[in-house]
Amino acid sequence: MKVGNNYYTTVWADGQKVCMIDQTKLPYHFEIFEAESYLQTCKAIKNMVVRGAGAIGAAAGYAMAQACREAPKARYEQAITRARKDIEATRPTAQNLFFATKRVYEAGKQSPQKAVEKARSLAEENIDEGKKIGEYGNTLIKDGSNIETHCNAGWLAFVDHGSALAPIYRAKREGKKMFIYADETRPRGQGARLTAWELKNEDIPHAIIADNAGAWLMAQNKIDMVIVGADRIAANGDVANKIGTLEKAIAAYHYGVPFYVTAPVSTIDFACDHGREIVIEERAEEEVLFQEGPDAQGKWHKISVSSPGSGAVNPAFDVTPAQYISAIITEKGIVEPSQLQNLK
Amino acid sequence: MKVGNNYYTTVWADGQKVCMIDQTKLPYHFEIFEAESYLQTCKAIKNMVVRGAGAIGAAAGYAMAQACREAPKARYEQAITRARKDIEATRPTAQNLFFATKRVYEAGKQSPQKAVEKARSLAEENIDEGKKIGEYGNTLIKDGSNIETHCNAGWLAFVDHGSALAPIYRAKREGKKMFIYADETRPRGQGARLTAWELKNEDIPHAIIADNAGAWLMAQNKIDMVIVGADRIAANGDVANKIGTLEKAIAAYHYGVPFYVTAPVSTIDFACDHGREIVIEERAEEEVLFQEGPDAQGKWHKISVSSPGSGAVNPAFDVTPAQYISAIITEKGIVEPSQLQNLK
Repeated sequence: MKVGNNYYTTVWADGQKVCMIDQTKLPYHFEIFEAESYLQTCKAIKNMVVRGAGAIGAAAGYAMAQACREAPKARYEQAITRARKDIEATRPTAQNLFFATKRVYEAGKQSPQKAVEKARSLAEENIDEGKKIGEYGNTLIKDGSNIETHCNAGWLAFVDHGSALAPIYRAKREGKKMFIYADETRPRGQGARLTAWELKNEDIPHAIIADNAGAWLMAQNKIDMVIVGADRIAANGDVANKIGTLEKAIAAYHYGVPFYVTAPVSTIDFACDHGREIVIEERAEEEVLFQEGPDAQGKWHKISVSSPGSGAVNPAFDVTPAQYISAIITEKGIVEPSQLQNLK
Repeated sequence: MKVGNNYYTTVWADGQKVCMIDQTKLPYHFEIFEAESYLQTCKAIKNMVVRGAGAIGAAAGYAMAQACREAPKARYEQAITRARKDIEATRPTAQNLFFATKRVYEAGKQSPQKAVEKARSLAEENIDEGKKIGEYGNTLIKDGSNIETHCNAGWLAFVDHGSALAPIYRAKREGKKMFIYADETRPRGQGARLTAWELKNEDIPHAIIADNAGAWLMAQNKIDMVIVGADRIAANGDVANKIGTLEKAIAAYHYGVPFYVTAPVSTIDFACDHGREIVIEERAEEEVLFQEGPDAQGKWHKISVSSPGSGAVNPAFDVTPAQYISAIITEKGIVEPSQLQNLK
């Protein structure tokens, strides 16, 4: 997607190097991080230079390919097995990472060249999924729509296109006018920081709103649709996504505003029958109690935004029951949450 | 209410001085601001040393009484008329300020002593209202309740007791156990900063939550009731209050969680038939885009929490339709939103 006047993906291979947009610097600085070795790529994944399931998967695939090229011929299989463990240890809860590492490792057993090809094809698959989600989702967007988004499920979380923002980018390319209300998405502010950054670079009119403002905008008919991403989708269509998704879905349901979930089919966990089986991560209370960012001179500070001595409860995700979801948009088409089995 | 081991009101008279808890310093520093003259009290009101309708009203009444004592006998009426204008110019949208200033001015026409008595009785009325709201509201709180609050409608916004927090304080005094989930309340964070500060001083177990987390806690049966304050109540029971109140009310309605609004009867605008007539203030986008607070060394910073160059939309309040409100708790009793006329 566009950054200034250039087109980028979040991660790509350049010879033996793996290049990544350094997401720890966004939205304040746009920098490319170049990893010269698989161990440097591991470090980048661990330090969240790349974030988002799709981007992490692609970076892990490229790291595995790097490792295959670096491995000495004499102890090749031993070296790449060791490397696979290193890569898998970087973000042990990222499902896409294991998926990619395994595939590239298997290809790499044949030759380093096969590993490189597999890593590239996995990244291309991810790009293609985002593109198709964009094409399908675009059919639901009317010219002149006002759209609310939550968190960041943009191209920065994938290799390109994204999930929730992919339909918006596609609609923009087709000349549709839109206005996006990007939920700030406390506590980590991915909407205010990343979604807004993406939209600005794509010249799409938008405004950041406090998470509190969604229902009120809906009550005034200022929201025509809500589009969000998904962290995990149960077989019954229940959706785990960033905390606050549920609150938006209930409000949208209430006001008759269509509520769309976007995700590649790989996000659907057919082994998980019901949303109630999904365990929700409780994150550090620090995220709620403090905020970080640069002052007017660009100097970084961590400040208190709460009363000292009070604690916080910080569930990172919530589960939105299928009944509040108008449709799920995937690379294989648009389906009702109750019809997910058709995508198997 | 309690601060450390002492009891305070937000504003009080001490001879010719007006003393106020300096709310611009909270929750990080507890300081008393002493205004030696009515002009100093005006400045304190303007600079938000006192905030909240009830506290502003009381401070304005005391300022008017100060002015009466300061006025030279020779030009008494001219001086107090001039002072009334000064006081009314400090926060021109605060209805309670005009109410108090007018009453004390009228009393002051008789004598400075009458003005002092009237100012004190107005402050006492406010204390009494909060106390009664607490008593009525307490009857709705079961021992062991988990309660969600939004924004700060605690004693800091009144002279004492508060509105939304008054029932909680009363229940605590009666030995009931409770756990309070205090919504952070972006963009200004009054829940994280002020409600949490009050609760800590009253030794009431609590946690701050991101505004996004409310519905998810309700979905898990972790919230037994929601109690909020009100900025203005229409005759039909619609309630204007801090942005996000509507979203909580819809979620509570949805999950069958009782949703209570607390306010003195003076908050009901019987001349306003319907919530749709209430004009909602749109505040500066800076509030959403930046955050302020102290770092670990206590040094104050203003930091960006958003992507530079993106704007924000920042409605400060919303209107919750009466249908989502279980009851309105006033100093005259607990009424259904449709029965407000009985309080006239």
